Amino acid sequence: MYTIAQTPLPPYFAVIFTSLRTEGDHGYSAMADEMEALAALQPGYLGFESARDGLGISISYWDSPEAIRNWKRNLDHRDAQQKGRDHWYSAYKIRVCKIERDYEFSRDA
Amino acid sequence: MYTIAQTPLPPYFAVIFTSLRTEGDHGYSAMADEMEALAALQPGYLGFESARDGLGISISYWDSPEAIRNWKRNLDHRDAQQKGRDHWYSAYKIRVCKIERDYEFSRDA
Repeated sequence: MYTIAQTPLPPYFAVIFTSLRTEGDHGYSAMADEMEALAALQPGYLGFESARDGLGISISYWDSPEAIRNWKRNLDHRDAQQKGRDHWYSAYKIRVCKIERDYEFSRDA
Repeated sequence: MYTIAQTPLPPYFAVIFTSLRTEGDHGYSAMADEMEALAALQPGYLGFESARDGLGISISYWDSPEAIRNWKRNLDHRDAQQKGRDHWYSAYKIRVCKIERDYEFSRDA
């Protein structure tokens, strides 16, 4: 499902995860779905957006830096992070940021 | 070309542009390439990442809020913004943010 995350008024926080995959699935797709569902259960989770066409970009939105730190330390997520380094990604970059303002357009608006 | 943007040490700034396209090209691809090239010529530009598979996510990185404001006001870019609302996008959301920290992984490192 392709949707723009419905986030509250700024300020809020985001983790931008930009990645290049290795060849083959190696259990990646199932774990990616699982982590997306698990993230949505964490305190302070606000939303998620993802796209890939060679380069992958996934963004999770959070209500505080503490929520981001807690998610980073989640044990199942830590296991997925390690598998990512061992198997799934040839390279990635993670950027933690504060959303200071936002605006939107919708044809239906 | 699929590359993770090589950005300097934080803090720096980003514009996250999340979008849903209308059907058909309507000159979109050519203009998207043109705007990406034009952005790279602006003062304060640091890099660009983009992916689309239904949802589109494009992120441009900048060295200051002023650089972002100047790019928003660029006349050719304003023309593209208007065409985006008239033709290319059914919906989009723009989030302006400050990157506070980042870290990366590379299999070759």
